[in-house]
Formats: sequence, structure tokens, C-alpha cells
Amino acid sequence: MPDSLVLSVDAMGGDAAPGVVVEGLATFAARRRDTGFILYGDEAAVQAELDRYPALAARCELRHTSIEIGMEDKPSQALRKRESSMFRAVQSVKEGEARASVSAGNTGALMAISMMVLRKLDGVHRPAMTALWPTLRGRIVVLDVGANLEADGHQLLTYAIMGEAYARAIRGVQRPTIGILNVGSEEMKGHEEVRKAAELIKASGLDLNYAGFIEGNDISEGTVDVVVTDGFSGNIALKTAEGTARLVADFVRDALTSSPMAKAGALVARGGLKRLRERMDPSNVNGGVLLGLNGVSVKSHGGTDAKGFTTALSLAGDLALSDYKEEVAASLARIRRGPATSETAA
Amino acid sequence: MPDSLVLSVDAMGGDAAPGVVVEGLATFAARRRDTGFILYGDEAAVQAELDRYPALAARCELRHTSIEIGMEDKPSQALRKRESSMFRAVQSVKEGEARASVSAGNTGALMAISMMVLRKLDGVHRPAMTALWPTLRGRIVVLDVGANLEADGHQLLTYAIMGEAYARAIRGVQRPTIGILNVGSEEMKGHEEVRKAAELIKASGLDLNYAGFIEGNDISEGTVDVVVTDGFSGNIALKTAEGTARLVADFVRDALTSSPMAKAGALVARGGLKRLRERMDPSNVNGGVLLGLNGVSVKSHGGTDAKGFTTALSLAGDLALSDYKEEVAASLARIRRGPATSETAA
Repeated sequence: MPDSLVLSVDAMGGDAAPGVVVEGLATFAARRRDTGFILYGDEAAVQAELDRYPALAARCELRHTSIEIGMEDKPSQALRKRESSMFRAVQSVKEGEARASVSAGNTGALMAISMMVLRKLDGVHRPAMTALWPTLRGRIVVLDVGANLEADGHQLLTYAIMGEAYARAIRGVQRPTIGILNVGSEEMKGHEEVRKAAELIKASGLDLNYAGFIEGNDISEGTVDVVVTDGFSGNIALKTAEGTARLVADFVRDALTSSPMAKAGALVARGGLKRLRERMDPSNVNGGVLLGLNGVSVKSHGGTDAKGFTTALSLAGDLALSDYKEEVAASLARIRRGPATSETAA
Repeated sequence: MPDSLVLSVDAMGGDAAPGVVVEGLATFAARRRDTGFILYGDEAAVQAELDRYPALAARCELRHTSIEIGMEDKPSQALRKRESSMFRAVQSVKEGEARASVSAGNTGALMAISMMVLRKLDGVHRPAMTALWPTLRGRIVVLDVGANLEADGHQLLTYAIMGEAYARAIRGVQRPTIGILNVGSEEMKGHEEVRKAAELIKASGLDLNYAGFIEGNDISEGTVDVVVTDGFSGNIALKTAEGTARLVADFVRDALTSSPMAKAGALVARGGLKRLRERMDPSNVNGGVLLGLNGVSVKSHGGTDAKGFTTALSLAGDLALSDYKEEVAASLARIRRGPATSETAA
């Protein structure tokens, strides 16, 4: 197994595990020949899938466990299942065997386990969950999409720091622009937390490319590279967008099947419509990361297909190979000393 | 002028006033022959438009004012412009000349004027702004979409009461279902305000058709008829949906112009695509109402076309002719006495 990059994988997480997990791994492994994998799961079930991909199998170490975390398990129950495939995959990162872990299992369980095992970075009060969001300008980063319902100004500042470093790591944009989600772009708009966050970002002394307040429509317009918000608003924005995209897709489907002529037109235009389906494919944006921990733990959507699982693996790989953690740690150390906190000696 | 229903109209509000306003009025007047109108605005400009629609003109009383509220006017400035077309249109409702007013002007100004002139209903702490939201099941009601950034449990209960009566008035659904927007549907999810609101609705003693917590994707899915949320989350959800719908529409346009074959297919399917455009047309859902006042004041989008202005007029008419205000007043009186408040003698 090549040792330049090792990822640990919960082979039993998600609706179609381990089949989709292994198929996603095979595609990723073919693209990233420097990567090895530690897989946790039911040996017989996972090996049966691996047998279909000998090139992948040669780069995998399969570790057996019959314990799984179910979708109904509460975080408190999940934390006690230390021999589960999910827990052990995260534990591998903690122990330095793997540089990042990926699971498509129960979200609440994965957040709780990741926090307990990997622990928070110094200076992070609350980790934040990211989402990738499709725009005409490419994928942007939105955080927090649900790790914490509330966030004060200082927490939002840490989200900005983490989101910015994350966007640089996975997008390669040198100075990602940052916007705070609000109900208007004027400085006096919004509740106390977002106004305080704006002040703190501007006074942080960090070289953040802050673009100001943005509104909901700016997310899909790709006005900024990183959207900072509390977990309640972020979760509502994300799910509202998913519902809206599905609604419009339903309208399009209705329109193109509403008459024989419409169906004939759709047939002629099928090349363009295939491209549309590809752009709308949620597997392009699969993968959330709980930022602010001493290690990378990536959450794949439970219902994703193999292509989506590959996307989540790519995120994990990009983040593990980047300077993300060092950059965030340095920025957090700086704001603890800097003019933006109450500990200032000035 | 027939006196069964009179609407007052700010003829100068909106990007294309008074042309779009008068054209929208003409369509509405043709449909609702029992309605008369009081128009406020620049006499020469409005009369020139009215001259194109003699049947409408016969049912209009045009009152001259050269004072307008601009899009840049702050609410405090707007409140001083008592001779403006917007102020006078709302004043007409207060004075009982008109049953409802409609303006496509400055939103903040209209909210401030409506609150000052019409005053809040007894038992309403904060009025709430509504939006109509397209779904596969027809239009649903979302409130608050931005009148107040924050709302406690009791305010959310009043939003539920007002939104339910509003949905009945404009949609004719006898017992509209109500959902509270949250980050999950389980009872223990969400911050204190939404959990409190759920308790208060269930304990209200009112015959509310409460469906529980819903998530962002449920809005466009039309899971409920009325979505209750605070103004911060509601505004973000609304604008995020607008941005997403625009993004997907851009994707569709790209797909159907990406090649000669795609263009040919789109031409063949143009009937179906026309239907798609109609369903996506924002003028179908134009019109917000500031609920909780002693009178109806409808806000039309400033950039709407004549069809959208007609939609806003229909809202005003339906609401004015309904028992909405009496129903809300009765429910509010009941919860002030009822088991859901701290004044309970039990």
C-alpha cells in the first residue's frame, strides 16, 4: 500500500453500502494512484465488493467489524459503539494511520464521534458543517449548515476563517471571497450576531477577503466563494434550495412530457438535456466536512451514488494534503492575541 | 363607481409606474366588475394611462399628488411624506373609503406607513410579512419573510393564526395545514423559540390544523399550506429559493441552446417550454401582505409587470372581502384568555 496518502473509510455507512462505497473508491483510486485505504466493515460483504476491483483491492486494508451505527441511533448511543465501522474509521485519523476519514452514515452520530475522537482545534468553540453549493461560477462553500443552531459574532468569525482556508484547499482559489448571510447588504441590517461578526472580521488583522453582507439569492449566484451563517439559517437555506431545484426540475420534466410535440423536442434536444442532468446531479456537490477539528472527517450523503462517494473522497484527499489545518490554527492563534478580542492589551 | 368593493392604489409606486399599475388595474377591473378604485398619483401621468382604458377609467377616482416616496427614502422620511401617493392610499383604508390598498413602492416605507396608519390588531406584538410560494400543489403562504428579524414562541403563534386565516381567505382551503420551519421534524429539534411555538399552537385551544415541524425542502414540496418562521429565516429561505430557481432556469437555457440539435429540439418542444415559462413566472406569486393590522395593505414587487400587479390586486380584493380580520381578532382574543398564555387562571 503506498503511504503518501491513506484514507480511512466506513464501508458500511449509507443506504447502499458497501456496494456504492467500494464502487466510489474504485473510481477515486484510479484517479489518485498515490492513495491507500483502510476499510472498516463486514469482511465478507466488503470483500465480495472488492473482488470486483482487483486494482483497488490491492491498495485496501480491510478490517472486520460486525458492528454498525444505524440511521436511528442517537449520537449518545453512537458514542458507545466504539467498535463500529464509523467509530473506527474516525479513530484511524486520530491515531495517525489515516489522514482523513469518510462515512456516508448517520450525520448526528458522525458529528458526535468526530468531535469526541478528533477534538476541537484550540480557539474553536463550535465546529461547523460545510456544504458545497453549485453556482454558475462553480462550487462555493456554505457553513454552518447545521452543526450548531446558533452562533455569536465570534463563532461566525471562526467560521469565516475555517471556511476560507477550506475553500482554498479544495478549490485552489488563492484568496476566496467571504460573505455573511443576512437579510440585506447594508451595514446596519441584520441582528446583533451578524453585525458583530462583520466588525470582528474587519478588525481581525487577518488577510481575509471580506465582501460584506450577502442575501439568500447571492448564494446560487456565486457572489462570494464562502458563505458564513449560523447552523439554523444555513440548514434552512440548503434544504430550501434543494427543494426548489427539485421543484423546477419537476416543472421542466412536466413541460417536456406535456404533449407528443414536447416529447419529440426533448428527444431531439437530448444531448443538451443530458448536460443539464449532469449539471443538476447532486453527486457533484456531495460531501460535508465538520471544520474545526484536529483531523479531517468527511460526511457523504447517505443516499449518494458511487459518483457522489467519489466526490466526498476527493474532498477528503484534497483537504488532507492541504495546509488547511495549519492555516486555521495560525489564524485562530492570531485572533486570540489580536485586536478583535477582549483579551487585547491595547 | 360601484361601492361594493373599493381599493385604493398608489399609482406611482414601482419601477414602471404608473403604466404597469394602470394596465394591471385594467385586467383586474375586467375580471371583477363589482370593484371601484381610488388612485393617488400625478394627475397628468396617470390620466394619460387611464385614457387607454375607458372602461377602467369610469370606475376610477383619480386624486392628484405630486409627492412620491422614492426607493431610497428611509422609513422615517417616508412617514413624514403624508401627502405622498403611498401614504394617502393607505390613509384611504384607515378612513374607510377603501377596503384595501396596494402599492409597488418602497417596502420599508410601506411597512412603516401601514403600521402607523392602520395600527396593530389587539394582541399582535409584531405584524408579519407574507409571501406566496409556488409548489406543485399550488401557491402556499410563508410568513414572516422579513418584517421582524426575530420572533419568540408567542409571536410565532400569532403568525400561525394570521397565516392560517390568510390562506383560507385567498386560497379557499377550509382548514389550511400549518408547519413551523425548523432544521428537522423531530419534536426536540430546533432552538427554544420554535419548540415553544409548537407547544403554544398545540395548547392554544384553537382549531388549528397543525402539521408539526417542517424543513426547508418541504416549502417547495408544498407539504403544508402555511409555513411559519421568523423574519430572518423566512427572508433567507425566500431569496435563496429565488436565486436557486434562477440558477436552474439558467442551466435549462444553457442546455437548450448548447448545440444546433438542442436548439432544434427546443423549437419543436416550444409549446411545453411556454408552459414552463408560465409556471416559473414570478408574477403568479406577486403580492405580500403585512398581516396583523387593522386593515389590508398589499405590497407588490417593485419590478413586477402588469400581470403581477393584477395578482397583487386580486390578493387585496380577496382579503378585503373575506372574514380574515374578524377570524384573526377572535382567535387572538381567545389565546389571550386561553390556556396558552401566562394569564391562565387554571
